[in-house]
Amino acid sequence: MKEHIAELRTLERNLYAYNYALGLMTYDEATAAPAESAEGRAEAAEVLSRAQFNTLVQPSTDALLDAAEAEADTEQEKAEVRELRISLDRIRPIPADEYAAFTRLTQESVSVWGKAKRSNDFSLFAPYLEKLIAARRRQASQIAPDRDPYEVLLDQFERGLTIERCDAFFAQLRAAIVPLLQAIADHGTPVRTDFLDQDWPIEGQRVLANKIMSLWGLDPAHCSLAESEHPFTNGFNSKDVRITTHYMPRDMLSSLYSVAHEGGHALYELNVDPSLNYTVLAGGSTMGLHESQSRLFENMVGRSRGFIHLIWPTLRTLFPAQLSGVSEEELYRAASRAEPSLIRTEADELTYGLHIMVRYELEKALFHGELSVSELPAAWNAKYKEYLGVDVPDDAHGVLQDIHWSWGEFGYFPSYALGSAYAAQAMASLAAEMDLDAMLAKGDLTPLKTALTNRLWQYGCMKEPAWLIENLCGGTFDPKYYIEYLTKKYSELYSL
Amino acid sequence: MKEHIAELRTLERNLYAYNYALGLMTYDEATAAPAESAEGRAEAAEVLSRAQFNTLVQPSTDALLDAAEAEADTEQEKAEVRELRISLDRIRPIPADEYAAFTRLTQESVSVWGKAKRSNDFSLFAPYLEKLIAARRRQASQIAPDRDPYEVLLDQFERGLTIERCDAFFAQLRAAIVPLLQAIADHGTPVRTDFLDQDWPIEGQRVLANKIMSLWGLDPAHCSLAESEHPFTNGFNSKDVRITTHYMPRDMLSSLYSVAHEGGHALYELNVDPSLNYTVLAGGSTMGLHESQSRLFENMVGRSRGFIHLIWPTLRTLFPAQLSGVSEEELYRAASRAEPSLIRTEADELTYGLHIMVRYELEKALFHGELSVSELPAAWNAKYKEYLGVDVPDDAHGVLQDIHWSWGEFGYFPSYALGSAYAAQAMASLAAEMDLDAMLAKGDLTPLKTALTNRLWQYGCMKEPAWLIENLCGGTFDPKYYIEYLTKKYSELYSL
Repeated sequence: MKEHIAELRTLERNLYAYNYALGLMTYDEATAAPAESAEGRAEAAEVLSRAQFNTLVQPSTDALLDAAEAEADTEQEKAEVRELRISLDRIRPIPADEYAAFTRLTQESVSVWGKAKRSNDFSLFAPYLEKLIAARRRQASQIAPDRDPYEVLLDQFERGLTIERCDAFFAQLRAAIVPLLQAIADHGTPVRTDFLDQDWPIEGQRVLANKIMSLWGLDPAHCSLAESEHPFTNGFNSKDVRITTHYMPRDMLSSLYSVAHEGGHALYELNVDPSLNYTVLAGGSTMGLHESQSRLFENMVGRSRGFIHLIWPTLRTLFPAQLSGVSEEELYRAASRAEPSLIRTEADELTYGLHIMVRYELEKALFHGELSVSELPAAWNAKYKEYLGVDVPDDAHGVLQDIHWSWGEFGYFPSYALGSAYAAQAMASLAAEMDLDAMLAKGDLTPLKTALTNRLWQYGCMKEPAWLIENLCGGTFDPKYYIEYLTKKYSELYSL
Repeated sequence: MKEHIAELRTLERNLYAYNYALGLMTYDEATAAPAESAEGRAEAAEVLSRAQFNTLVQPSTDALLDAAEAEADTEQEKAEVRELRISLDRIRPIPADEYAAFTRLTQESVSVWGKAKRSNDFSLFAPYLEKLIAARRRQASQIAPDRDPYEVLLDQFERGLTIERCDAFFAQLRAAIVPLLQAIADHGTPVRTDFLDQDWPIEGQRVLANKIMSLWGLDPAHCSLAESEHPFTNGFNSKDVRITTHYMPRDMLSSLYSVAHEGGHALYELNVDPSLNYTVLAGGSTMGLHESQSRLFENMVGRSRGFIHLIWPTLRTLFPAQLSGVSEEELYRAASRAEPSLIRTEADELTYGLHIMVRYELEKALFHGELSVSELPAAWNAKYKEYLGVDVPDDAHGVLQDIHWSWGEFGYFPSYALGSAYAAQAMASLAAEMDLDAMLAKGDLTPLKTALTNRLWQYGCMKEPAWLIENLCGGTFDPKYYIEYLTKKYSELYSL
């Protein structure tokens, strides 16, 4: 009988319960709560996050961790101690009052962000953004006083990530993407897109969303699909995962690829070993790893010819008028078209990295004190002009488009690009073992899902992120696979 | 500076936060959660309810209450101490482990009940019902060892209610209802009901539901409408209230009157003085008082000629084919028809009391050990035959129809009948001050809502229930007003 491990498990179950409650409040806010209900939610969130803080940060916690470590003789037990120590190091330096006040602030901010986006009014959100940045900067300095505050935040989403590594990664990416885009502009065979901007009845889009859920193998008994302003995934445990989408009347691909993307997150959460539930090892690992799975299912699966072929009959049945005179190949090309655009979540695979770079550079500048919140919209618009060549018409389609900052999540965006790169390398490595086209021809993704379970999903947070990245990728991470993937796909697509 | 009052307020805000989280889990379970997600919710609920228990039940709580009482010099402060003492007396006698385990059990039970109802299989639910009854009986004996356990539960929903008073009330009601029903059967002018059982498109029913919300004056920014198996209201605070309904394809009146009913609950919650938010005085008082408001809006308003006249143009626009050849007066009569039936929530005003009596007598027998869970379905069916003359075709339309027992709520049902009686007396008293028909002719219920705010809503739990009942009713409570209301309405309706 390992009494300290048992005590640790109780602590972990208590943390799970607070995470569950706070996560449910976030989910409810985005999917169901009345618009003007933020005050009472913030009030409750503050109390619960303080209780969560006090559950972990106790004078006795160090002694408990030491005692549990002495008892730990399984990989899981050792990992639990390791992850709890990391959590403790990340929150103990923050005063409890500030920790709880920050949770309250994010609950208020997300509600104000929604209003600001709907009414296209950045000035509503600006004071909240200022407070969020100030609070995160203060937290970063409390956690690691000698370190670059933005790097401290990056590390919270992608353990071990540094600004130096991030800069190098994006430089490598940019050096590949920019010439490719230039080549497409100069001598690419044009892709037909005229049919995309039509009325796509929402009812048909809903049926399509459920079809994607079913192709991914997401069991509705354990994974629901709801609607929200900004699509997201919330994994409560391996038996309760929620994804959301947003239906756009004149853009059928938007919700299709949101569901494909969030469905990838959901598969990861649903396939973590259920014996890890209610421990700190439950759920997916870093956000980079999480995004690798969402981007893999969105792009490497969802934007493949094999996938378009698979859903083509469904699409033709659901949207006969809209797709009249459109060929399967034209839809494939339209779904992957490289086209500088305004909205990250609807961006193609090639320009996607540029959307992320804009955010990465702006966040860095904000945290380095080189940019103020009042200057942010203009800076955003300038970067979109510079990197993507597009004019941002208003803040709703610009700086207000993403929910992340309102959640207080700065340093998250690079995960999307890193994840895309992990995914490309994983798929290159898996190509030796399996044939994705053959799977899609049969409409059965089981072999892919089994491989991803073996390489990544099952482990939750039991293994260290670095180990998981290497295991997923089938070798040391190298962005070249991502660049090769993009180059090959887009050279073929545009006959470069 | 009243330091102990301030400390008490912190305690109250903490209790609010746990209530919020646990309430949100219940709401989510019924409206959004995946079907097979009960395990992780129960796990979290157990932890949170234990934390809630420990927030209130501390060795120091008595001293705090004494010190706060010494400081209290406003009505609100005194009431906070009073209500906290009552809460403490109700949960302190229960061991913390049992309290938390019971919360877990209800989370599991409500999920199993849903499955049992959908699959019409009482045997699924029976073991949970047994555990729920055993736990509640044990709790009652812990709280008041010398008192009838069922009466202890009654008192939790309607403070001061006794079995003796309840028996007398129901006897009085039965003595009036049974002869009225007999007279209707013997020589009532038949009411036309042939048009009710048709296809009523759900989309139209949704528009109608929103129309009722708007007529009641429920601001969607603070009150949402969702769907669930069993309609209910959840008031988180005076700025965040949720109601649900259930649309039945072949019964338009079902959802209409569910929304009217839950809308009455919502009005009460939304109009409690907002300065009481996050204290123990927030929200409506007893369940009898709560049901008085829901039943008032469902029946005295919603089943009046004036209301039918008001929504008639909307109904004709939404359902032109279904209402072709139907007159406004025929709809009025159909909506109030006295017709022995199977389902409580769809029962007419006259037979409604009999549905409640069935449950009251069965609960009493269960808690007095005179009836076992295995005997319950047969006993239910026998009582429905005896009191309402109907044959229950299956348990889904019988003993499994209501959600309350799965929530562990025994002793709740009498509140519905008492509430109906409070409502009738209140309306009789208000008739001197205002003209409901004139209000409905103008489509503006403000004078009624103002009067109810003045008499009841604003107070939350600041006043004692007995004071509120008398203030609402405009005098000492007397069931005769309810009986007079029913007698008058049904004598006229059936030309007795």
